[in-house]
Amino acid sequence: MKTHKINFEPLGLSGRCRTNESLLACAHRFGVGIISLCGGKGNCHSCQVQVLTGTVSEPTPHELEVFSSQQLKEGWRLACQTYPASDCTLSLPPNSLTTLQRVQVEGQEVAVSPEPTVTAYQVKLSTPSLADPQADADRLLESLNRQHRLRCNHIDFSALRKLPPQLRSWNWQCRASVRADEVITLGPWPSRQLGLAIDLGTSKISGYLIDLGSGQTLAAKGITNPQASYGADIISRISYAMKSPGKGARLQKVVVEALNQLAIDLCAEASAEVEEIVDTVAVGNTAMHHLLAGLPVGQLALAPFVPAVSRALNIKAGNLGLHIAPGAYLHLLPNIAGFVGADHTAVLLATADTESKGMMIAIDIGTNTEVSLIDSGKIVTTSCASGPAFEGWHIKDGMPAASGAIERLRIVNDNIQYQTIDGKPAIGICGSGILDAMAQLYLAGVLDKGGRMARNHPRVRSENKHLEFVLVSEEERDGRRAIVITQQDVRELQLAKAAIRTGIQVLLETQGHREEKIQKVIIAGAFGTYIDVANAIAIGMLPSLPLDRFQQVGNAAGTGARLALISLSKRGEAQKIVSGVRYIELASVPSFNKTFIQASYLGRYRLRQGKREEID
Amino acid sequence: MKTHKINFEPLGLSGRCRTNESLLACAHRFGVGIISLCGGKGNCHSCQVQVLTGTVSEPTPHELEVFSSQQLKEGWRLACQTYPASDCTLSLPPNSLTTLQRVQVEGQEVAVSPEPTVTAYQVKLSTPSLADPQADADRLLESLNRQHRLRCNHIDFSALRKLPPQLRSWNWQCRASVRADEVITLGPWPSRQLGLAIDLGTSKISGYLIDLGSGQTLAAKGITNPQASYGADIISRISYAMKSPGKGARLQKVVVEALNQLAIDLCAEASAEVEEIVDTVAVGNTAMHHLLAGLPVGQLALAPFVPAVSRALNIKAGNLGLHIAPGAYLHLLPNIAGFVGADHTAVLLATADTESKGMMIAIDIGTNTEVSLIDSGKIVTTSCASGPAFEGWHIKDGMPAASGAIERLRIVNDNIQYQTIDGKPAIGICGSGILDAMAQLYLAGVLDKGGRMARNHPRVRSENKHLEFVLVSEEERDGRRAIVITQQDVRELQLAKAAIRTGIQVLLETQGHREEKIQKVIIAGAFGTYIDVANAIAIGMLPSLPLDRFQQVGNAAGTGARLALISLSKRGEAQKIVSGVRYIELASVPSFNKTFIQASYLGRYRLRQGKREEID
Repeated sequence: MKTHKINFEPLGLSGRCRTNESLLACAHRFGVGIISLCGGKGNCHSCQVQVLTGTVSEPTPHELEVFSSQQLKEGWRLACQTYPASDCTLSLPPNSLTTLQRVQVEGQEVAVSPEPTVTAYQVKLSTPSLADPQADADRLLESLNRQHRLRCNHIDFSALRKLPPQLRSWNWQCRASVRADEVITLGPWPSRQLGLAIDLGTSKISGYLIDLGSGQTLAAKGITNPQASYGADIISRISYAMKSPGKGARLQKVVVEALNQLAIDLCAEASAEVEEIVDTVAVGNTAMHHLLAGLPVGQLALAPFVPAVSRALNIKAGNLGLHIAPGAYLHLLPNIAGFVGADHTAVLLATADTESKGMMIAIDIGTNTEVSLIDSGKIVTTSCASGPAFEGWHIKDGMPAASGAIERLRIVNDNIQYQTIDGKPAIGICGSGILDAMAQLYLAGVLDKGGRMARNHPRVRSENKHLEFVLVSEEERDGRRAIVITQQDVRELQLAKAAIRTGIQVLLETQGHREEKIQKVIIAGAFGTYIDVANAIAIGMLPSLPLDRFQQVGNAAGTGARLALISLSKRGEAQKIVSGVRYIELASVPSFNKTFIQASYLGRYRLRQGKREEID
Repeated sequence: MKTHKINFEPLGLSGRCRTNESLLACAHRFGVGIISLCGGKGNCHSCQVQVLTGTVSEPTPHELEVFSSQQLKEGWRLACQTYPASDCTLSLPPNSLTTLQRVQVEGQEVAVSPEPTVTAYQVKLSTPSLADPQADADRLLESLNRQHRLRCNHIDFSALRKLPPQLRSWNWQCRASVRADEVITLGPWPSRQLGLAIDLGTSKISGYLIDLGSGQTLAAKGITNPQASYGADIISRISYAMKSPGKGARLQKVVVEALNQLAIDLCAEASAEVEEIVDTVAVGNTAMHHLLAGLPVGQLALAPFVPAVSRALNIKAGNLGLHIAPGAYLHLLPNIAGFVGADHTAVLLATADTESKGMMIAIDIGTNTEVSLIDSGKIVTTSCASGPAFEGWHIKDGMPAASGAIERLRIVNDNIQYQTIDGKPAIGICGSGILDAMAQLYLAGVLDKGGRMARNHPRVRSENKHLEFVLVSEEERDGRRAIVITQQDVRELQLAKAAIRTGIQVLLETQGHREEKIQKVIIAGAFGTYIDVANAIAIGMLPSLPLDRFQQVGNAAGTGARLALISLSKRGEAQKIVSGVRYIELASVPSFNKTFIQASYLGRYRLRQGKREEID
């Protein structure tokens, strides 16, 4: 039978597809994780892909139902309904991909001209003699400055300590890595210059190994933040660190050790040595930032929630115990406030188009959700305590986004359709699944606008006088405990989503804007990337705007860190962003309480001055 | 009986003297260590003092013999021959003082306007609130810059780590110590700013605690360099350090520990805290410099004897393990060459008048003797391996300058007159005594020009076929072993003094000068300060010039370190000096061998092109 070559972008995977095999079936055969809730029947609409090149079968009625003629013209199709008629290139949007492959997509290139902070120069030195006994360091600096018209005036001290034997073993020829007026490290010539970008999240750490010359990402990896053993959320870690100076030092040590191992793993993947890493940029929320740098965190947890430092820091990586090139710096992007850290700065750096005329919102959803409103180059930012519910905490059957977690869910005619991570049997429900469940329960009439669960639905039952909705029954789990959403879970989620909506609303009101004016909503972060935006609107977590105004950008904090690593101008831009940001403390806004109460309602509505105008 | 008040300057001591008591007797009664070889008979001429104010007795024949009428007019007198007729102020030249009190004199003030690298500013901060939640570091920098029109842009990292709790405990008011654009440390307001100047010698370390505001020396102390346990001289310490990286680190650790203890002791003396020390300058020979900084020393010991670094270094003191103010720097003055270190730079800084028209020589005598010739602003420098003989090593009865060491010696009519340190019974002979002995033996005809010992002198005897001159006999020591100078000692001393004379001569010849043109000879260093210059000329160690052209300046390296500590301009001057210095490697000068052979002769002579012209 005839086959065609299918390229799956941006994954960079390809394989051959028979003409009687759907694009979805072909993708699954090659391990490409396209979401399919209905199992390929064409009615869940989750397997949307864009055909960039090549010819495919005609649209089916299912597809005509989902897509506008404009969208069909642009190549949008349901993978389960489409068969190839020639070689094709498909673009898979993050929203159609399962968790693991979305993480892979995050490792893609960032588009900025390399303009690294550290530059490598080849230096040829004359050999010292009795007639020319100039000191090694002075000889090196003079040769470097003369040969490359530089004005370096010092050598990093740990590099200096190795200099005399190294110059002799390299036969008086070397690579000098220069940062501003300092030689930060030396190596044999030729040698690569690598950089490490780190997104230090409360629960997850992402690392990217970059070739500073080309800006190319050589390797990317995500690991668990080992500080989690000392407290799952920021506040419990701050409490731990405050017990004694030794505890803070311990939190620093475990994260530095993890970063060292991450650097080793990334280098192994790229056949590199950690000593080739000559520059590092890290971003994280203010608490993670402070704990990494060994700064006190006590004042972060008490009003008025003040960081030890906001402005960008350059710290000798070796002083923190990071084992990379001697003399390399760790650059920490500037923090915005006690609860708006360098990670949000990085998100703004990666996403905020401060030149644009249209108003935009950037949201990074997490235990703490940062929201920025960007309008005519001005940025106002706030932070909302959205809590850990969307990370699966305090939810009866909640779990992190791991194998077997329900990550997508739909209720069709009282039937529950769901998809788990890795396609494994369901064992719990993760953030994006929880959000889907809540929206679907509301749309199915199981929850009312106030979030109260209907007693009369066949899947609603009372356990110890507490109502719960059965997502996966005992029978469906071969006798194991059912997976449920409880009335209490719904209340937790209402608080979480109300916090986010209130943050957006307060920013709009302080600027005198209405939500209809928002031209673009950037949703960053792991959780934000995987949510179904329509469902998030359905529960009133996000304002009701046309779906095409929303953009789920993945790990924008990691992207911002990579941009700052590659480009000196981007570091300047980050400082400029932070200097211009006006931070608004939610608790200090008079309308906060009223708005928060209204924002806890489900459904689509507009908020104004603490009042709710329903749309449907 | 009538008494008068006598002030002994520069010691700052005073006491009352009866009119029938000589100034010498009065001085000794108050513990002022004026040298007296003849026991007050007026014929050793060693107790010279200058009467600055007040009336004293008429000059005696002894004094008329020693002093010119001009000198008498200037107040020069022998303390043993002079009686007070009113309250008096005496100036005691270093040469008239015993070792211990000379060291005290070294602690005197240096004359330079304070222009410290680190300046203290009072900063008043607004208290953060929910409406003004600016980060602590940013708040501090902004207030500091605004209140004092500065442009500081960062805070030392160890200071930053303490900042949040400190600002709160100081109630948002503090002292910021600023160096260039960096806040290096913070303290409560008001508080002092102290500096520490260190002369790190191979055998002795001198420390000076300075008030950076006034430039005043608050305390001074000398200690033994604990590295001595790992090798008495530079070469043996380098050998030790080269055995393994751990050995070098060990040498660094012991000296840093000693410096920490020295800082504690100096602070205790001045009722200060080590955290008040906000700046440090250290000088030492290149090997001591490198061992303190933790730089490799292997290349120093092998031709072409290249330092790891010459230019000045600024190292965070905390990074070396120095426990002073967090964020304070250690400034190491620039080195000149592998065997001409920052200590010689400091000597030149303290003594070299590069503006002067007349040619001058600066010598720092030690195991390694550095010699510089300064002429019309140009400096040429060399280093001579004078060996440890003048420090008492390889000399049969040699010993360091400690209690009981013969430090002054004269032979009058075959009688040996000598003075020991602290006036204790003689137990050996230290450097200045050894030099005196050699000169006196030559002048008494016991040694010929070639250094051969006469067999027929009553105090010369043969022990195991080796000739030796008895300085203190068994009888004079109540049966204990005699103190002697052996023929072998004389040979060692000839090599030592020939090296120094050769160094001076080679510099003169490379510049096309004759020694008569030398207008000033600066003799620096512990040993150089205590020698009898006339005796040094008598053995041909120093060129035969009028005595008033010689100036013994004490610990000029320590003075240079203090100057650099107090004054930023002086640091610039030091770098300028080093940049202009031409270093000459003695071994590479063709006439070296010939000159060295001639310079080993005793007596007064001029050298020229490897030939010797006797003067007497």
